[in-house]
This record gives sequence, C-alpha cells and structure tokens, in this order.
Amino acid sequence: MTARQPDGQVASCAFCGIVAGRLEASVVYQDSDTVAFIDLRQPGWPRGGHLLVVPKSHVEFLFDLPDELAAHLMQTAVRVANAVRMVTEPGGISVWSSNGAAADQEVPHVHMHVVARHYGDRLLKVYGESPERPGRAELDGLAARVQAALAASTPT
Amino acid sequence: MTARQPDGQVASCAFCGIVAGRLEASVVYQDSDTVAFIDLRQPGWPRGGHLLVVPKSHVEFLFDLPDELAAHLMQTAVRVANAVRMVTEPGGISVWSSNGAAADQEVPHVHMHVVARHYGDRLLKVYGESPERPGRAELDGLAARVQAALAASTPT
Repeated sequence: MTARQPDGQVASCAFCGIVAGRLEASVVYQDSDTVAFIDLRQPGWPRGGHLLVVPKSHVEFLFDLPDELAAHLMQTAVRVANAVRMVTEPGGISVWSSNGAAADQEVPHVHMHVVARHYGDRLLKVYGESPERPGRAELDGLAARVQAALAASTPT
Repeated sequence: MTARQPDGQVASCAFCGIVAGRLEASVVYQDSDTVAFIDLRQPGWPRGGHLLVVPKSHVEFLFDLPDELAAHLMQTAVRVANAVRMVTEPGGISVWSSNGAAADQEVPHVHMHVVARHYGDRLLKVYGESPERPGRAELDGLAARVQAALAASTPT
C-alpha cells in the first residue's frame, strides 16, 4: 500500500506533485477532478502536440478507476484532443493510456496521453508485425472467458 | 456528409454492421450505447487479448463524441480492460484510440482498443525514437495556444 498524504496524494509521485503545484508544469486545464498539461517530450517538435490528462487523485492503473472518475478523465481528454487538433492541425490524433511495466508505464499514476500524430511518426503499431488471426471458434472462446470475467467484476 | 440509415447507422461501416448484427463478431458486452467485441487480429496469440469498444452510433472521430457518450465509452473500456487483465494476466494493459489517417485509423467509426500487453511486443513507442525536449518557455507557448482553443470550444 502506497503511503498517502492527508489529501490522498503520494509524495514521491511526479503527477501528484504537479497536481499539488509542487512541481512545474505547463498546465492547460484543470477542474475538480482532472488536470491536463504539456508533456515534456514532444515528438515532431516544433509542431508537437503531446499532452497528458490525469486524475487529481492518485490511482495507479486505468482499470482501477472508479466509474465516475473514468468518465470525467475521458471527457477532459476528448476536449483536450479537440483543442490539440485545432492548434496543431495534425494528420491524426491518438489518445492512449499505458498501464503496467510491459506497457512502458513510467509514472504510477493513471495518465491519458493525447498525441497529435504526424505522418510517418511510427509511434503506434496497432497490430504489431504479423498478428495472428485466430479462427472464429478461438475468438469465441476468448470472448466467453472475458464475458465471465465481466460478469464477475461489473457492478449489477 | 455520410448517408445514414434511419437508425443512425452507416451501411458501409463495418462497426455499424456489427452493432446491427449484420456482420459476425465475438461480442463480449453491450448496453444501450456501447458494444465490446474481440478484434480479429490478436498480437501475442494464443495469449492474445485485443478487444474493441465502440459506440453504437456512428461517430467518426473521438474528438467529435458528445460528452455523455465519451464518458460511457470509457466506462465500458475500463470494465473490459479489467476483465482482459483477469483473463490474460498480461504484463500490462494499453487502451488507445486512433483518429485520422496519420494515426492509422482503419474504420471510420470511433473505437477504443483494449490490448493486453506482453513484454517485448513493441506495439507502442510512447515518445518515438528521440523526442525533442523543448524548454519551458516553448512548452508554455504551446500551452497558451491549447488553452485558447479550449476556451473557444468547451461549453461553459
């Protein structure tokens, strides 16, 4: 269990530091539950257009977000994506959240990346080099397992 | 303007076809506004764990989603991510949405990918090969432009 301060934040967490104003950031938006700021690393600069949207409270993984906070985070991310689109006029916009070591999550505080995409930036391979195409029976088998997990975990 | 059917769906859209039941899919979840199903392409199969979550109504880009639908889509994606985590026990989970040609969006109907990440799958480079690290004044300049776009576009 991570030690929390009285305000629910974690002293060692960089994003809690930004939320609390202890660490410098170029903040573009904040409300009761979410903050959006410019990422320090900007692929495709000077066009750039890489921002982060985080919940103010310290939650490590996206899949641990309470329903209301997940909703609020996404609404902020969508608004920020639209603003980034207007400002950078990119060839695309990606929004992503990486969770866990295999996904290269660097800061253990949920964050949505909002990224202006420029042709040839090669940031994201949606399917990797040569993804398998399992048959329908195999896909249905996976579906059945996910359904069972959903039934066991979703509030009714 | 895309020609819509009476139910708001687009005949030529693969995801509208799945929503309407005209096209086969291994559906794991649906409710009034969203559907989740297994993606045909499964990096890391037989572990796999790649699903799509879509709004039932045809909206091309994430940044055009109404607030309520964005919220609902994210809540479904978070629940599905949690179920995928339980089923595949991966090293990480990524959730992403790609919008526009430069982001390699293939189907012009908003979709959130929920992807079990396995070590070394190299699907996502968060920052590309050698991202620029602009100075604070430059970051603040970008922030000011995004703030102005947010102020011009966000409902008050």
